[in-house]
Amino acid sequence: MDFAEIARRLELETLYTDYAACLDSDALERWPEFFTEDCRYRVTSAENYEAGLPLGLIYATSQNMLRDRVSALRDANIYEPQRYRHLISGIRIERADAGMLDATANFLVVRTMQDGGMMLFAAGRYVDRVVRAEGGWKFAGKDVVLDSRQIDTLLAIPL
Amino acid sequence: MDFAEIARRLELETLYTDYAACLDSDALERWPEFFTEDCRYRVTSAENYEAGLPLGLIYATSQNMLRDRVSALRDANIYEPQRYRHLISGIRIERADAGMLDATANFLVVRTMQDGGMMLFAAGRYVDRVVRAEGGWKFAGKDVVLDSRQIDTLLAIPL
Amino acid sequence: MDFAEIARRLELETLYTDYAACLDSDALERWPEFFTEDCRYRVTSAENYEAGLPLGLIYATSQNMLRDRVSALRDANIYEPQRYRHLISGIRIERADAGMLDATANFLVVRTMQDGGMMLFAAGRYVDRVVRAEGGWKFAGKDVVLDSRQIDTLLAIPL
Repeated sequence: MDFAEIARRLELETLYTDYAACLDSDALERWPEFFTEDCRYRVTSAENYEAGLPLGLIYATSQNMLRDRVSALRDANIYEPQRYRHLISGIRIERADAGMLDATANFLVVRTMQDGGMMLFAAGRYVDRVVRAEGGWKFAGKDVVLDSRQIDTLLAIPL
Repeated sequence: MDFAEIARRLELETLYTDYAACLDSDALERWPEFFTEDCRYRVTSAENYEAGLPLGLIYATSQNMLRDRVSALRDANIYEPQRYRHLISGIRIERADAGMLDATANFLVVRTMQDGGMMLFAAGRYVDRVVRAEGGWKFAGKDVVLDSRQIDTLLAIPL
Repeated sequence: MDFAEIARRLELETLYTDYAACLDSDALERWPEFFTEDCRYRVTSAENYEAGLPLGLIYATSQNMLRDRVSALRDANIYEPQRYRHLISGIRIERADAGMLDATANFLVVRTMQDGGMMLFAAGRYVDRVVRAEGGWKFAGKDVVLDSRQIDTLLAIPL
């Protein structure tokens, strides 16, 4: 492991950490900025992912579609008095080219309701393509592959 | 990212890792040593934290108060046959000055009862001030910001 | 922290990350390759571990025994339609010698059933001896110390 590899790895960790902090603090308006303009973002089940089925619970093919999704979530204006907490671990670089990485990571999202009840909300892994862009690393592709086939929520929130 | 930044980041991770290991092994007598003498330690809810309310479930303004708390917990001598396991991830350096860092991190604490039952005990984030002291980095301030408003426990244990 | 220390630490993280990815993707045939030929692998409870009791839920004293265990699991051919997700954090180097490390880490395993139900499956810590071998770091010893005394499963799967 040389110095450039170490720096790249820690930069990648920082990307995931910032991503989780953005979602957990409900700063959804900043969420699309983690992606490139022509990004692909998808939430799908492990079952569908392994079967090669293209679509998912959420499917977007540009940063603008992500912005639209956030607007829709805000407009729906459903008061969901819960908090989400992302635990991301096991970040792996599967392939590295100049300015481009394929990375995977495990995630667990815990939901806390206003009355204090806590539940496991989602577990799975990210299968991502990360590229070096202006302002640092960004997601050119992100597959959120859920271990379960369904997710208990009124609205499909970003994961 | 230069070498000093990388080293600092890994030292910070070590601090959180050692902190979690201390609590999970019930080595509470060593817990105050993670703090400076004039530290501020607080456990509060996200709701109170965001509203700027100063107090919390636990509030201490010195290392000695932390020692007193541990003594009180030991004297209470309530046999609580459970184990706690901390998962800490997403350590972020929010601000760095010479010998001082503002850092945040996500945590999840799982409780296992003697009969094998497991539950999500607490989730939230640490909002910390870390300073370089004799013997390495220490917490000068630690806000344990819980996602829930309450916590299911007989005694307010350190988190 | 010098450069060699940093590199070693990140190599160790990679070992745990690869280990978790192997188990979570049900690539059990590759699991024994994370161990040396004369390895010791054990799954035990914290209670037994602290009492110094030698045996456990699973006890193996060679890589071949691990291979046999995987064969037995495959032959049993019980269709268990669940997925496991490992969250590993708090990797600590307890002792470092030339080509050998004693390391501990916290883990949480979440199980997702085919119907979408999720549960905390296991929490605890790894108490490991890691050695530098051909092809990178391997486990010469791994104690999987569970916080609970029992584990809810038909078959003792690798952890």
